[in-house]
Amino acid sequence: MEIEFLGTGAGSPAKARNVSSLALKLLDERNAIWLFDCGEGTQHQVLSTTIKPRKIEKIFITHLHGDHLFGLPGLLSSRSFQGGDEPLTIYGPKGIKEYVQTSLRLSESGLTYPLRFVELNGDGIIFDDETFTVSCKRLDHKITSFGYRVVEKDHVGELQVDKLRAADIPSGPVYGQLKAGKTVTLPDGRTFNGQDFIGAAQKGRIVTILGDTRKTRRATELAANADVLVHESTFAADEGKMAHNYYHSTSQQAAEVARDAHAGRLLMNHISARYNGRGARELEQQARQTFKRAKVVRDFDVIDIPFKK
Amino acid sequence: MEIEFLGTGAGSPAKARNVSSLALKLLDERNAIWLFDCGEGTQHQVLSTTIKPRKIEKIFITHLHGDHLFGLPGLLSSRSFQGGDEPLTIYGPKGIKEYVQTSLRLSESGLTYPLRFVELNGDGIIFDDETFTVSCKRLDHKITSFGYRVVEKDHVGELQVDKLRAADIPSGPVYGQLKAGKTVTLPDGRTFNGQDFIGAAQKGRIVTILGDTRKTRRATELAANADVLVHESTFAADEGKMAHNYYHSTSQQAAEVARDAHAGRLLMNHISARYNGRGARELEQQARQTFKRAKVVRDFDVIDIPFKK
Ligand SMILES: [Zn+2]
Ligand SMILES: [Zn+2]
Repeated sequence: MEIEFLGTGAGSPAKARNVSSLALKLLDERNAIWLFDCGEGTQHQVLSTTIKPRKIEKIFITHLHGDHLFGLPGLLSSRSFQGGDEPLTIYGPKGIKEYVQTSLRLSESGLTYPLRFVELNGDGIIFDDETFTVSCKRLDHKITSFGYRVVEKDHVGELQVDKLRAADIPSGPVYGQLKAGKTVTLPDGRTFNGQDFIGAAQKGRIVTILGDTRKTRRATELAANADVLVHESTFAADEGKMAHNYYHSTSQQAAEVARDAHAGRLLMNHISARYNGRGARELEQQARQTFKRAKVVRDFDVIDIPFKK
Repeated sequence: MEIEFLGTGAGSPAKARNVSSLALKLLDERNAIWLFDCGEGTQHQVLSTTIKPRKIEKIFITHLHGDHLFGLPGLLSSRSFQGGDEPLTIYGPKGIKEYVQTSLRLSESGLTYPLRFVELNGDGIIFDDETFTVSCKRLDHKITSFGYRVVEKDHVGELQVDKLRAADIPSGPVYGQLKAGKTVTLPDGRTFNGQDFIGAAQKGRIVTILGDTRKTRRATELAANADVLVHESTFAADEGKMAHNYYHSTSQQAAEVARDAHAGRLLMNHISARYNGRGARELEQQARQTFKRAKVVRDFDVIDIPFKK
């Protein structure tokens, strides 16, 4: 599980940072990529990565501001042009369907794959299968803006077949009983406890990815115990008033949310063009006063999200 | 007068060529820039040029395919974000207004400047003022596609004031009579012919910029005696059948149009990603068999369009 940042800037594209998009790469987990936001030029950014558009299974749009949205019709068309035929689901605020369908209809862009929309009505679970649950909550922005919480289901311990063989336990129905954790007596009289042959269970990982927002309790709830929190940091620590007026957050507020949520790591994006290389490092230093594991991310940063030890 | 090519590729963006857009730079003529087509990432390309979005006075969309269109809402928003307040007019096929207005409404992108739409109903003059006339004709593409003919009005000869002073002719109403080409007798008895004090008139320039099209007589009509013809060249000379099936042109067909129109120069764009550096030069060579002054353009090529000598 990795996050690859495709656009970490705010408002308008700049040479240093494109507008918002990130890829949650779930290649080992489900051979798929989930995209969060799709600002203009996201498909151009993808050209410089190993991401294959046809592997994009879901796209979550946090809010409909152009810097998070205007790359969507082009990406959908190119996925089709490149022969993608797997279904794709788009999640987002009300209006996302009209926007995409109008763009595709007027440009006469027929797609080679089924496109499904889930328009969000409010807080709650929006996706659930054997491996992941995704829920959302409304944040506090000028326009309806959502945060997403992606929860990987716990991995149960695997039966350690090598260890069974080393103990000279013949394969057969007995494997199933041991896997279920039972104690089994073999025909030769030896007794084994299944627990001894089951690897460690692994806690599923939690990734929280937020749209543009003022500091809000709902961000903290979405990020509770998350391994990684992606939170905007449009303004510097001393610009709280401006952040409030423009419905955004400061570096320090992002850090407070990460701290209060007991998150493992804070990745700060949506960086204003006012903060160039050195400015961005200052935002990071400001956040670290409050939350040590804070990082201002850049376009094409790849962040690994390991299992908890 | 210059053309700067912002995107010279076909269909999907590639690293070597972005999707379609070009800027007709009329800085000396009207301190303005006219954009033709606006594929996704056009505003990103603009970042690498000296073009100021607020100077963009008109945008002409040839057709609504995404590779000519999807950069428009982002460019309009950024022009606003950067404080543009001059009116902007968008010309294009029916549907252009719905596309832009839906995108701006759903993304809640208020603009700081007035936006006007001219939806094209058919062939004819779509703009005319003291310096330029623009007309359009429908071409032959899968979707309604237009070509534009930009005609600069002739420059009348200027009164050469330096020459008047050298002849010791005192300023006054006599200047107006001389400028009108009349013969004038001064109070001191000297006689002057206005024609001797008027500089050479200059023929206005003609630039023809086409949308995607099969080879068509209407392209030739639009390009009649043009100083520059911009014509697509999606396919190679020997791919006439494929070009026809996909509603595009070959390199040779583009050259035939330029030749038949007696154009001064042919600039070939909408180059498929199948033609890389060497491939593109081959398209150019193919065209030159038929029309010598043919060139396959690349992103960021700037082509000067001088007055005829
Ligand atoms: Zn934003
Ligand atoms: Zn095209």
